[in-house]
Amino acid sequence: MIEPKVLKGFRDSLPSQEIVRQKLIREVQDIFRSFAFVPIDTPALEYTEVLLGKGGGETDKQMFRFTDNGGRDVALRFDLTVPLARFVAQNYSELSFPFKRYHISKVWRGEKPQKGRYREFLQCDFDIIGSDSSSSDFEILLLIHTCLKTMKVGDFKVLVSHRGLLNKFLTQQKIDSKSDAVLRAIDKLNKIGKDGVCEILKEEGLSEDNITSLMNFIDLPKNNFKETLDILKTMFSPDSEEIVRLSQIYDLMNECNIADDFVLDTSITRGLDYYTGIVYETVLLKMPSIGSICSGGRYNNLAGLYTKENLPGVGSCIGLDRLIAALEEINSPLVTNSSYADLMIVSDQSKPLWQEKTAMKFRNLGLKTDCYVGSKGLGQQFAYAQSNRIPYVICGEENGLYKLKEIETRQVFESQSAEDIVKKINDRS
Amino acid sequence: MIEPKVLKGFRDSLPSQEIVRQKLIREVQDIFRSFAFVPIDTPALEYTEVLLGKGGGETDKQMFRFTDNGGRDVALRFDLTVPLARFVAQNYSELSFPFKRYHISKVWRGEKPQKGRYREFLQCDFDIIGSDSSSSDFEILLLIHTCLKTMKVGDFKVLVSHRGLLNKFLTQQKIDSKSDAVLRAIDKLNKIGKDGVCEILKEEGLSEDNITSLMNFIDLPKNNFKETLDILKTMFSPDSEEIVRLSQIYDLMNECNIADDFVLDTSITRGLDYYTGIVYETVLLKMPSIGSICSGGRYNNLAGLYTKENLPGVGSCIGLDRLIAALEEINSPLVTNSSYADLMIVSDQSKPLWQEKTAMKFRNLGLKTDCYVGSKGLGQQFAYAQSNRIPYVICGEENGLYKLKEIETRQVFESQSAEDIVKKINDRS
Repeated sequence: MIEPKVLKGFRDSLPSQEIVRQKLIREVQDIFRSFAFVPIDTPALEYTEVLLGKGGGETDKQMFRFTDNGGRDVALRFDLTVPLARFVAQNYSELSFPFKRYHISKVWRGEKPQKGRYREFLQCDFDIIGSDSSSSDFEILLLIHTCLKTMKVGDFKVLVSHRGLLNKFLTQQKIDSKSDAVLRAIDKLNKIGKDGVCEILKEEGLSEDNITSLMNFIDLPKNNFKETLDILKTMFSPDSEEIVRLSQIYDLMNECNIADDFVLDTSITRGLDYYTGIVYETVLLKMPSIGSICSGGRYNNLAGLYTKENLPGVGSCIGLDRLIAALEEINSPLVTNSSYADLMIVSDQSKPLWQEKTAMKFRNLGLKTDCYVGSKGLGQQFAYAQSNRIPYVICGEENGLYKLKEIETRQVFESQSAEDIVKKINDRS
Repeated sequence: MIEPKVLKGFRDSLPSQEIVRQKLIREVQDIFRSFAFVPIDTPALEYTEVLLGKGGGETDKQMFRFTDNGGRDVALRFDLTVPLARFVAQNYSELSFPFKRYHISKVWRGEKPQKGRYREFLQCDFDIIGSDSSSSDFEILLLIHTCLKTMKVGDFKVLVSHRGLLNKFLTQQKIDSKSDAVLRAIDKLNKIGKDGVCEILKEEGLSEDNITSLMNFIDLPKNNFKETLDILKTMFSPDSEEIVRLSQIYDLMNECNIADDFVLDTSITRGLDYYTGIVYETVLLKMPSIGSICSGGRYNNLAGLYTKENLPGVGSCIGLDRLIAALEEINSPLVTNSSYADLMIVSDQSKPLWQEKTAMKFRNLGLKTDCYVGSKGLGQQFAYAQSNRIPYVICGEENGLYKLKEIETRQVFESQSAEDIVKKINDRS
């Protein structure tokens, strides 16, 4: 006998979990489609050389990398961004730009497994490639907003900044030579707090004055996007690229009545990632501890490693599995109701044909209908319905009228017409 | 510069292809749900020991197998059946039986790439575990039938047999000692023809008489399920397990008015697979050459390698990628219309806010609406709409009325209300 087990850091998705995942996938797919974004897919396995790119990052060590039977150095993809860059370069002539794509698929990272972190997880990326316009920046932000509203995650804020602002500030302060260290430190703000950040900056050799003004800069008032923007206008030239871009984006948000859910937060940097323009994270007000479930930004040369075409882009990534964990925490109806079936038809050995014919009838009437196909008695059939969260069971038929049992209340309704049953079930949901 | 390329036998899915794939996935998901089948997911990567099982098959050599960073012997799954067996054994106490699950996901096989065969492909499996009833056999057949009807693949036949029939026949002929060789030979019938099969059987040492009667047996009249069944009743005891089971299944088909699409074909064996009861394949009458796009059968001990629980099951697998190839061949509307967008709003630099606000309005009216977010002139914007198969473009607005261009005809409609536009687009589809 072989022990049935999965690898450390991997997991099965049971029906109750997978139903939720599929439901959320469909929700976001529908949103992307309404924005005319198109799906793509890329291989799970690629040449290591392609996936490594410039290399040197933390992800390199986390790759599932091996030599295939043909002697090729290959690896499982660890994100959907590098494959997108390769995809756009390789299929350039067959795409039309600006190219708006989404991609919902698995990625693999050999990270140390910890609570809520797995070695295989589902990513959901959406990007616009081939445009540097503020309307493309805005569309990604609007998509994030639409997704979070549709998912009913409760109140949330999208925290937005522009990479150039911090760089400009560091130049003003004449500490731009330390920009990498500063970015890295500020990116840890949520994890280690202000004192922790100051400690690191001190170790990096920044003066008390520099540290104080830097901490003031990332701690500007954040109550209102417009107010923060006005403060920034006094600090930097109003004609500067960053201020102009943020103003345009703000005007679009305002025009579409969503500005209140956005915060201009100069502490957002996205660490040493490849972003070059606006950057953003999200925070769920009911559970800030879960971290950003949707982050992203603008990069000015996505596919530079693979093509000479200059392809600016902007995009974001929803951590669907993390989002599900968040929805479970707030008992969202999206995650608690995880059954497909509306109705079950009992198995009656004396009438073997009746069951499947009846099921067919109710499926044609639009009900998700289960036939009990086992050989157990009625009691165990009801138990099956209960554990599969099937609300109603048809236990018999006479003269075209059905005997219906409601599982939760154990109530029995005699002589129900098919229409009665359809109505009862449709009224329920 | 790194050359952007994918591994041999792997491929990207471009938007026009992926839209079709996603459409078909949604169609079959909806069917499975209407039958109250539930989805599961399992890791792409598993312990090699778990995936190999008894081992010895052709698939062993085709596995993408390697040692992970933790020194574990791991491999990518090569089908969804072995993972299902492991899943059911491991999660036994959390499932309720009969367990009806579907699983749509990628599998990987290092086969020699050839036309229509890839090393990464999408499988769609559906099984009922924990029941040996003929109604569970029937439900899988009904699901196959419903899927093929919904997919509009044109006329098709589902070829059904029972493993036990051929075994019984071989015993009658006293050649049951050769049953493996005979099974293997008959399974090649479509590839090598009758003469080829006879040749192999001769080499295996079967007598001329045996070969003749065997060829007659697999070549019984197939015009009508019931007629073939009646012939078989004269050859075997009407009380024999196989005849009883096939009769029960036939009665169910007949009751549900689908019997005409099923053929009782004693040449169907599914080779040396693990099937023990009924087995089936499908054939598309317009393109028999594409082979079976949906096959399966009953196995009496799915998870025997991983658990002492006895779990009979029945299931099938749709080769979605092969189905798409078939649909392309018959120019099915399912695969030719591969656009999501209904409408595009042009970019007008003089009114930067107008575009996104207008798009939002039409999205809220239910139209899939694209904003052109690039910086090109109108001519190139129309070219973008054309290459993205967007039927209509809004080029301007005055007093709440829109200027609409139909891309295909280049016709321009002035002063259209939002309602006019919604109606025009909804009438189209």
